[in-house]
Amino acid sequence: MSMTNANFPMDAEGRTYHVGIKRGELANRVLTVGDPARAITLARSLDGVDLENTPAKTIPANLFSYASHRGFLTITGTYKGVPVSIVAIGMGISMMDFFVRECRAVVDGPMLIIRLGSCGSLSDAAVGDICVPSGSYLVQRNYDFFAGDSDNASAKPYHLSKIFQADPEITKTLVKNMSAKLGDNHVWSGVNATADSFYSSQGRQDLNFVDANQDLFTELVEHEPNTMTLEMETFTLYHLAKTSTTAPLGQSQVSNGESKSKNSIRAGACMMVFAQRKTNAFITKEDVVRVEPLAGQAVFDSLVEVQL
Amino acid sequence: MSMTNANFPMDAEGRTYHVGIKRGELANRVLTVGDPARAITLARSLDGVDLENTPAKTIPANLFSYASHRGFLTITGTYKGVPVSIVAIGMGISMMDFFVRECRAVVDGPMLIIRLGSCGSLSDAAVGDICVPSGSYLVQRNYDFFAGDSDNASAKPYHLSKIFQADPEITKTLVKNMSAKLGDNHVWSGVNATADSFYSSQGRQDLNFVDANQDLFTELVEHEPNTMTLEMETFTLYHLAKTSTTAPLGQSQVSNGESKSKNSIRAGACMMVFAQRKTNAFITKEDVVRVEPLAGQAVFDSLVEVQL
Repeated sequence: MSMTNANFPMDAEGRTYHVGIKRGELANRVLTVGDPARAITLARSLDGVDLENTPAKTIPANLFSYASHRGFLTITGTYKGVPVSIVAIGMGISMMDFFVRECRAVVDGPMLIIRLGSCGSLSDAAVGDICVPSGSYLVQRNYDFFAGDSDNASAKPYHLSKIFQADPEITKTLVKNMSAKLGDNHVWSGVNATADSFYSSQGRQDLNFVDANQDLFTELVEHEPNTMTLEMETFTLYHLAKTSTTAPLGQSQVSNGESKSKNSIRAGACMMVFAQRKTNAFITKEDVVRVEPLAGQAVFDSLVEVQL
Repeated sequence: MSMTNANFPMDAEGRTYHVGIKRGELANRVLTVGDPARAITLARSLDGVDLENTPAKTIPANLFSYASHRGFLTITGTYKGVPVSIVAIGMGISMMDFFVRECRAVVDGPMLIIRLGSCGSLSDAAVGDICVPSGSYLVQRNYDFFAGDSDNASAKPYHLSKIFQADPEITKTLVKNMSAKLGDNHVWSGVNATADSFYSSQGRQDLNFVDANQDLFTELVEHEPNTMTLEMETFTLYHLAKTSTTAPLGQSQVSNGESKSKNSIRAGACMMVFAQRKTNAFITKEDVVRVEPLAGQAVFDSLVEVQL
């Protein structure tokens, strides 16, 4: 670590401070996950992987990879001949922010980013099913509510943000490709809620803390009747895509000679149901092993199908 | 992974889902850091470590350790004969929330938790100095502000929360012990600001996104003139300590036969200045190697000095 510039720290090689990548190592089409183990599993679907000689839980030898000292793992190769990257980012809105900003800083031209995550289901989607949210809102603990003074008598203990939308073409393509891999009856559409805690802001009951979250599920459905999933990252991806500019793009770098959008990032997401919050069921290891690679292939198919 | 109960998932062994620890593996006195490499460095100060035969970047053989599949590292041993743990949690408010809640769930009796982090300095504290914040507030991007509709004409782009206080005895003890290790003129007191982004919510300028954060430093100082540091986790620790209950404690488990507090967690924090935001300076590797172990010893001294 020998960083310069506290405004946007990079090392002497040009690697960003947290994700640890530099220009040339990341494709414009990115699949992002939380768990590094999932990234390694999905990398087995990339071109040229010698599956017989690639032990499970190892990164295929023909691919570029970089594990940063702060827990990010980047793997770059091609899928059906098109350059793609997989980036594992860990958990939470702050980690998604690191990932989007540090990747944007080292890639030229427009980007497509699709998240493949896990989630809790508030709808009828069962464990092992896939949800593709067209939009996402943020569930934040209203920390001030818990300060113990009288200012907040009328405030609510959780703040629910406005909905930010996924790219409609990416969402449509994901639904189509997920259905092809897993069957129509295992693929769901709706809206995602991203929470700043796995516990209080997802309505989990924990007597060890004052959480005031008994009515949270009801409030989520009142806020957005089509609320389908709860997880911890997707909102930030959709939000940053919508607030991305075209600042880093020279006009010559934009495909077809002109920008189709004021944003340089187009984003979508899908998630596997790990927890069914209405029935309290949790996914089995066997279901994860079965669904994860198929869902990954559907994301790669979508990443290379959508035009930049 | 074979979890039960979507409300508070634990595996068949009783390990929590993300931090991965179970009852009996964690001490009531915990030093928490972000970077696993820092946890391993600090573990060298624990009792019975054979420094000659413990290579750098390895966990001493006499200590318990557990690395979870989601990036948490727990190391437990003793310091001056008192059981202590070190837990590396990664980055961001959501990761601090995982850590506090999953640790609280598997430890009986009252807990002391002290964070040793890194930060940016908004004050005169120089790179390599230590700051010990008596309180912390949260800087959150006001996501709704960026929705592009007219609802938010009067809203500000960032929300600054109320201040939550550290445990005063822990703070006082930390200042004393840090000064003994590093000298009075390298130890600072003040208030911390915890941000939900390393970039926009810490006032970093990035043309790739619409951030509206040019005036953020001014607003922080107006909100709290004694704002000293910016980082990404401490607020959540102070907040959860203040909202912790005594629910998990049987009366017999409380020291002296009675509870001194309505909270089961007492918390403090200190941070090394890595970035000087006024001069744009960044810490050198040599300064980290020099300061980190001394700061760690001062935290351990404080953890075992304060009565549970």
